[in-house]
Amino acid sequence: MNKIVKNIKEALNLCGIKDGMTISFHHHLRNGDNVINMTVNALQELGIKNLNLCASSLFQVHSPIISAFDDETITTVESGYIGGDVGVAISNGKLKNKAVFRSHGHRPSDIKSGKIHIDVAVIAAPTSDDMGNCSGKFGKSACGSLGYAMADAQYADKVIVVTDNLVSYPLCDFSIPETQVDYVVCVDSIGDPEGIVSSTTKITRDPAGLRIAKFAVDCIKNSGLLKNGFSFQTGAGGASLAAAMYLKEIMLKENIKGSFCMGGITGYIVDMLEAGCFETLFDVQCFDLRAVESLKNNPRHKEVSAEHYASPTSKSCIADKLDVVILGATEIDTDFNVNVHTNSQGIIMGGSGGHSDVAAGSKLSIIVAPLIRARLPVIVDRVNCISTPGKTVDILVTQRGIAVNPAKKDLAERLKASGLPVFDIEALKNIAEDFSGKPEPVERGNKIIAEVLYRDGTVIDEIMNYCG
Amino acid sequence: MNKIVKNIKEALNLCGIKDGMTISFHHHLRNGDNVINMTVNALQELGIKNLNLCASSLFQVHSPIISAFDDETITTVESGYIGGDVGVAISNGKLKNKAVFRSHGHRPSDIKSGKIHIDVAVIAAPTSDDMGNCSGKFGKSACGSLGYAMADAQYADKVIVVTDNLVSYPLCDFSIPETQVDYVVCVDSIGDPEGIVSSTTKITRDPAGLRIAKFAVDCIKNSGLLKNGFSFQTGAGGASLAAAMYLKEIMLKENIKGSFCMGGITGYIVDMLEAGCFETLFDVQCFDLRAVESLKNNPRHKEVSAEHYASPTSKSCIADKLDVVILGATEIDTDFNVNVHTNSQGIIMGGSGGHSDVAAGSKLSIIVAPLIRARLPVIVDRVNCISTPGKTVDILVTQRGIAVNPAKKDLAERLKASGLPVFDIEALKNIAEDFSGKPEPVERGNKIIAEVLYRDGTVIDEIMNYCG
Repeated sequence: MNKIVKNIKEALNLCGIKDGMTISFHHHLRNGDNVINMTVNALQELGIKNLNLCASSLFQVHSPIISAFDDETITTVESGYIGGDVGVAISNGKLKNKAVFRSHGHRPSDIKSGKIHIDVAVIAAPTSDDMGNCSGKFGKSACGSLGYAMADAQYADKVIVVTDNLVSYPLCDFSIPETQVDYVVCVDSIGDPEGIVSSTTKITRDPAGLRIAKFAVDCIKNSGLLKNGFSFQTGAGGASLAAAMYLKEIMLKENIKGSFCMGGITGYIVDMLEAGCFETLFDVQCFDLRAVESLKNNPRHKEVSAEHYASPTSKSCIADKLDVVILGATEIDTDFNVNVHTNSQGIIMGGSGGHSDVAAGSKLSIIVAPLIRARLPVIVDRVNCISTPGKTVDILVTQRGIAVNPAKKDLAERLKASGLPVFDIEALKNIAEDFSGKPEPVERGNKIIAEVLYRDGTVIDEIMNYCG
Repeated sequence: MNKIVKNIKEALNLCGIKDGMTISFHHHLRNGDNVINMTVNALQELGIKNLNLCASSLFQVHSPIISAFDDETITTVESGYIGGDVGVAISNGKLKNKAVFRSHGHRPSDIKSGKIHIDVAVIAAPTSDDMGNCSGKFGKSACGSLGYAMADAQYADKVIVVTDNLVSYPLCDFSIPETQVDYVVCVDSIGDPEGIVSSTTKITRDPAGLRIAKFAVDCIKNSGLLKNGFSFQTGAGGASLAAAMYLKEIMLKENIKGSFCMGGITGYIVDMLEAGCFETLFDVQCFDLRAVESLKNNPRHKEVSAEHYASPTSKSCIADKLDVVILGATEIDTDFNVNVHTNSQGIIMGGSGGHSDVAAGSKLSIIVAPLIRARLPVIVDRVNCISTPGKTVDILVTQRGIAVNPAKKDLAERLKASGLPVFDIEALKNIAEDFSGKPEPVERGNKIIAEVLYRDGTVIDEIMNYCG
């Protein structure tokens, strides 16, 4: 007895797929993922309509699913991040219903509570046995952690594992157990390794980016939080990685033993683990091959679920134990509200991911951003979309200076006393506008095409269609 | 922020403990466990009444809880195994309501479905951090796997972790995540290491036991199942361990590469892993220190939940992939029904544990037992209690010969052809009775003091009070 069925279409039929259902996916294969496109194609061939596509993130590689918006195979999208042409299509009103954005921590919370009811979860698994014990650590399409898929596997009515590396029962080092899996489908390729993990994530060489990183680390150093037991999260952007590099230098020089690093993990963070800067890495997603190798081999590098990472309704989560996070922004306003959902024209090009979760959970949240991007100031009067509320944002670091949330007076004093260039955020805004001029207000459409849920379940903002 | 509260009583109060609730425990600390007694004592001091004690197993060490039967702190017990004086007390009618027996696989199934609703789960954790990320692998009271506690932690309304080894946040190699834990209580000692794990589990030296083991392995060898990919489970009894020893010799000699071994794990099974007899050990419970060390250090030795082990309602479980299991019996009847709940007088002294689960799941289930125990024949006309139905039992091995379930004619032919002493089970029964005489029928009381649920949820048998 095993659970293997011959293709995705058959698995969907066995799951009793029908119109109006919710079908879920995870995004560990990132911009290399084949599984969403293959599945959506099968759904189109089956003639299923009005589906809710609940994907933890969507990328440029998923642009073929726009055709399923057109033919109403998919009429709702719920996601943590919608990049590339898919975001543009939604902004252009191609999706019948509103898209719904949730943070990466909020998603497993709503899955667990039943606010999101998943009828069929599709798990892209780089390795699986014939009963569905599966892992992201092994195989030609290895992606490392499967942390975002865990809630889907646990709570969906039906679970299909799609793999391109079937191994003999049992897969010992499984991340998702067979107890949760109904069917296993073997395909030639679940994804393109080039898009799944970068072979190299690179530190920025841009002088402005390096300056931002240096300032950010100076803020950390002078915050009072950088001491034994320090915990940290940063992203995979060039400036964030540069900040990790500077932070590592300081921690080694000053012999500071941190406790844990959380996140999407890169090789730079693995270096910090191996150098003794941290005791533990918690990994909900691997960004590069070095992170995958480390997760596989280093017992101090541990895969965790998205719920454990950041669910606001779990009995506790790692995000709430973070000292410092470094995060990006497409825009930030003078109330420190951050936009990572849309570009400055209001077109969907991303999403919160875990941004709002860790901003809320951490003791110190630092936004790193250039003062001007694509000839437009990053600091604005009011962001096009509130992704992360200003009350959870402590510091903005730009290449020209630092702004501290007025609610954090002590912090501002500390940073000023250390000689850092601390400005009012309005002053930084003015500096930028002196260069680039004040941008024209964006003309928004009159149709709500997406709503952004905050991690407490409230609608924190709505995104209108683009009519530029 | 952390979850530490000063003692168990305070934790119970914070959990809102009240009369009539269900409070659960796991049994990895076995006959060394302090946590059940400490908790029951706290409940008595709080004056809580009519509790349902849902413990995966109970041992002689738990005899102090009998006083809580007397004062009606506890009026119901649900368990997989009730040993020592606790079983005797229940047989003597000391518990107000019926005790309910479930197998180790059935328990997580009923917890998941809500048939067992746990109000408060108490997790005895050999190591925990201040948020409740916990493990059995480390600390002075290390017990290895926490597999039986996982369903409790996942589905209980409130979860209390009790530990005697509090470590800095985060415990990287957790088995139960903080997401499931409400409170953490630190105590001096959660248990006596001598009782938690045997420092040595010993192979029998009894010639009859060795003969039984040899016959059992000859049955396996001639069953056709002993080939590459072979999977196996055995217990920690002397004859079972001797069987593992013989099996190892054959597998090494014949260069047979098994796939996995499941179970309660002993050092002998670890030896088989390390010698290359198996690729993987799946571990729901460690029986000795060597198993604990192996679980901690060998990535091919993997902790699994009781659900993954053997739940009949999970989407699949390991038990159903087993080729061969070797199991014990206090009695077996001529229909191959096995009793592991009571002794031959009908007094509760054990329980199914995973007995009925793996008998049902495996391709070949072998019962090993001496022909006569304590001057009484082990083969009887009708067992005092059906723990495992005869239809799931394939072979009885005694020191005098082997009986094959008549439903397995081909198997009987194979074993006969190999020269093994195969008898009708009645013939073996007669041999025993020639030695010991036919035992007097047991006088049962007229009150049902326990019911035995089979893994499909039906009542497979009832146990009457003892009135000898």
